[in-house]
Amino acid sequence: MGCCHYESVAEGCDSAFTVDASRITFGRGCLSEVGARARALGMRRVALFSDERVARLPLFQKVHASLKASGLDVVLYTGVRVEPTDASFQDAARFASEARPDGYVSLGGGSVIDTCKAANLYATHPADFLAYVNAPVGEGRAVPGPLRPHIACPTTSGTGSEVTGITIFDLLSLHAKTGIASPLLRPSEALIDPDCTDTLPGEVTAASGLDVLSHALESYTARPYVRRPVGPGPRPMSQGANPWSDLGCREALRLMGVYLERAVKDAGDREAREQMMWASTLAGIAFGNAGVHAPHGMAYAVAGGVRDFRPSGYPQDEPLVPHGMAVIVNAPAVFRYTAESSPERHLEAAGWLGADVRGASASDAGEVLAGRLLHIMRAVGMPNGLGEIGYTEADLGALTKGTLPQQRLLQNAPREMTGPVLTELFRQALRYG
Amino acid sequence: MGCCHYESVAEGCDSAFTVDASRITFGRGCLSEVGARARALGMRRVALFSDERVARLPLFQKVHASLKASGLDVVLYTGVRVEPTDASFQDAARFASEARPDGYVSLGGGSVIDTCKAANLYATHPADFLAYVNAPVGEGRAVPGPLRPHIACPTTSGTGSEVTGITIFDLLSLHAKTGIASPLLRPSEALIDPDCTDTLPGEVTAASGLDVLSHALESYTARPYVRRPVGPGPRPMSQGANPWSDLGCREALRLMGVYLERAVKDAGDREAREQMMWASTLAGIAFGNAGVHAPHGMAYAVAGGVRDFRPSGYPQDEPLVPHGMAVIVNAPAVFRYTAESSPERHLEAAGWLGADVRGASASDAGEVLAGRLLHIMRAVGMPNGLGEIGYTEADLGALTKGTLPQQRLLQNAPREMTGPVLTELFRQALRYG
Repeated sequence: MGCCHYESVAEGCDSAFTVDASRITFGRGCLSEVGARARALGMRRVALFSDERVARLPLFQKVHASLKASGLDVVLYTGVRVEPTDASFQDAARFASEARPDGYVSLGGGSVIDTCKAANLYATHPADFLAYVNAPVGEGRAVPGPLRPHIACPTTSGTGSEVTGITIFDLLSLHAKTGIASPLLRPSEALIDPDCTDTLPGEVTAASGLDVLSHALESYTARPYVRRPVGPGPRPMSQGANPWSDLGCREALRLMGVYLERAVKDAGDREAREQMMWASTLAGIAFGNAGVHAPHGMAYAVAGGVRDFRPSGYPQDEPLVPHGMAVIVNAPAVFRYTAESSPERHLEAAGWLGADVRGASASDAGEVLAGRLLHIMRAVGMPNGLGEIGYTEADLGALTKGTLPQQRLLQNAPREMTGPVLTELFRQALRYG
Repeated sequence: MGCCHYESVAEGCDSAFTVDASRITFGRGCLSEVGARARALGMRRVALFSDERVARLPLFQKVHASLKASGLDVVLYTGVRVEPTDASFQDAARFASEARPDGYVSLGGGSVIDTCKAANLYATHPADFLAYVNAPVGEGRAVPGPLRPHIACPTTSGTGSEVTGITIFDLLSLHAKTGIASPLLRPSEALIDPDCTDTLPGEVTAASGLDVLSHALESYTARPYVRRPVGPGPRPMSQGANPWSDLGCREALRLMGVYLERAVKDAGDREAREQMMWASTLAGIAFGNAGVHAPHGMAYAVAGGVRDFRPSGYPQDEPLVPHGMAVIVNAPAVFRYTAESSPERHLEAAGWLGADVRGASASDAGEVLAGRLLHIMRAVGMPNGLGEIGYTEADLGALTKGTLPQQRLLQNAPREMTGPVLTELFRQALRYG
């Protein structure tokens, strides 16, 4: 591409990028279309996936009723585990193999949609569990063909899972987050109804919103596609920043700058909640075709090593670092470090997020963006570093060790992410000044 | 949506919008991926569609060789008529029915891609020709199911047909342009290789570029989706302006402002030609999910009524108004009239196209945008009105009569387009001051 960011293709690197997108329907009330859409996709026997909390909400009844009203046979799986594991994925896959639906509807946050993707995959193309899991943890085998149709209905403005071909879980034996990535995992359609987010607690809106913000910021600053060495297989979804993903990232960052704080502080601000949902969709489409990098790669270790942290707004029965919190807490340190790879992009992003960037020079870019991120994090009640989540200097080695296997993400960063670099970034993320 | 343009849903109108997009691959050299991609879509016997001019170019050989190298059986249809008709569509459909390919590759401009869509449709779901044609000209019957896979490879930066579910042709018995519109017509993938445009004459780059510009400008100013009365059937592709299409429109307009004149005047300006191709893709994705309106609706009558006009840069054997020229010549008059529906959008668009909009007020919007369009049209050698194409006051009735059947487009305009309004717009378009 002609803009300076994509002007020259580095030797041995890619000269093209590939964009996949599924059908999306966006707007208040659109969940009522689910029955007709399921029928149009040829479904007759639908597995409706959700979790216990969502299954008690009126919107679950609305989806169930719409499916029944369209004459569909519906089987329910409402046992999705929040923060799914290989065990919970396999439980869902067993359910799907036995229930033999010819299509899927998922209604919930990222955990529900991801679990539904996995159940659809293993019920359609049975294999050993590790077969399709990303290498080096799994075999990284290609998904052999199309899955059953799947309509994903997100109830949080966060993960973007409804528009990506990625599913993430905890591999219990290794205490590590990993996932499966294939364009064939992408749901056939997404029904994105902002009504779903009206009742979300502010804390959940904050953490999920900062996940969205980081999707956009990481995709925008990722290694450009023209610097990705061409490998033997097909072009991966994590192909790096490209002119397509840039469009969604810019708009998502702008919306975050205007609406995040409003959406967190006033659940009744329908405009802000709606725009957060739209930003989530745009950032999902962008990162699904560009890939995230270090803040997400580091987040898995942060979430996985949790000891006693129990944030307000979330279930108190077990310790938990919400995904968006685990991501954003690394971000100021990471973007201070990556800024020199593309200072103008880091400054632009700070500007969309609301920073005053007049007079800022390239050498200020990292500080300006980190400063803006910290301003936003404080405004919506995020911890001021890993220290407030319970980590100390003594954990830096374990956090680094837990991050290094995330090579798919680390190689998508615009600067090298070695062990010593990660350790230093985690150190800086312990406490922000 | 929360921005003022989409804030309130009008009574009986739609509260949601639906976006469809196919897989796209963009970049110099990406045509070499066609064989592997055809195989990945399950093709074994491919019909390669093109026209006589393109079939003589090295890029045709490149595509043919890539398909053969992937072990595919290839049958050729290089007889596509530029400006296709119902007769030429049916000829192509007969070929496809007899050759029985299990997939399609189209390489050419909009005529080639549109013909391939039609051949695929009628070979896969045979029916009387008028069955699927847009009402009121045809029966407007729904396409009954998926078509065979189709990889579209555009060789001009213009129509956007590679990413839309629309195919357009001349119905010879009525001397009218009409078409078929269905999400199922959208090609499975598009391979967009800017190398294809390096040898296009400047005149072709100008007319096709102004088609792109108008796709973006019409979609951006179209009636907002929240003002479209909900009908009995599924949401149409021409659903009106929406936050998704807005993103592609804005970027396409910005790129037009920077690169169109450069791309027309210097065929060796690779950056400009590449960015025109990208703008064409973005505008195609946008108008495929929003719809164009009056300038396109009026263009069909302008092109259909041609007498002696033979523009340079095009074959001289028969009179012809290039599609982009037939569109843009109406545009200044139309946007002067539509500006009062959304002055801020018309001003914004003028700004992206390079106009100085500082100090402009809402009441200036139509003049500012029309003035900028005329500036660009003159810079790239477009006629200064319908008069230079051969029309006079005496033709206004026929032009209006030829436009009124385009209700799908006219109803997508932001102000009412009655017969008297169209006549007045055509009158103003005869000669610009």
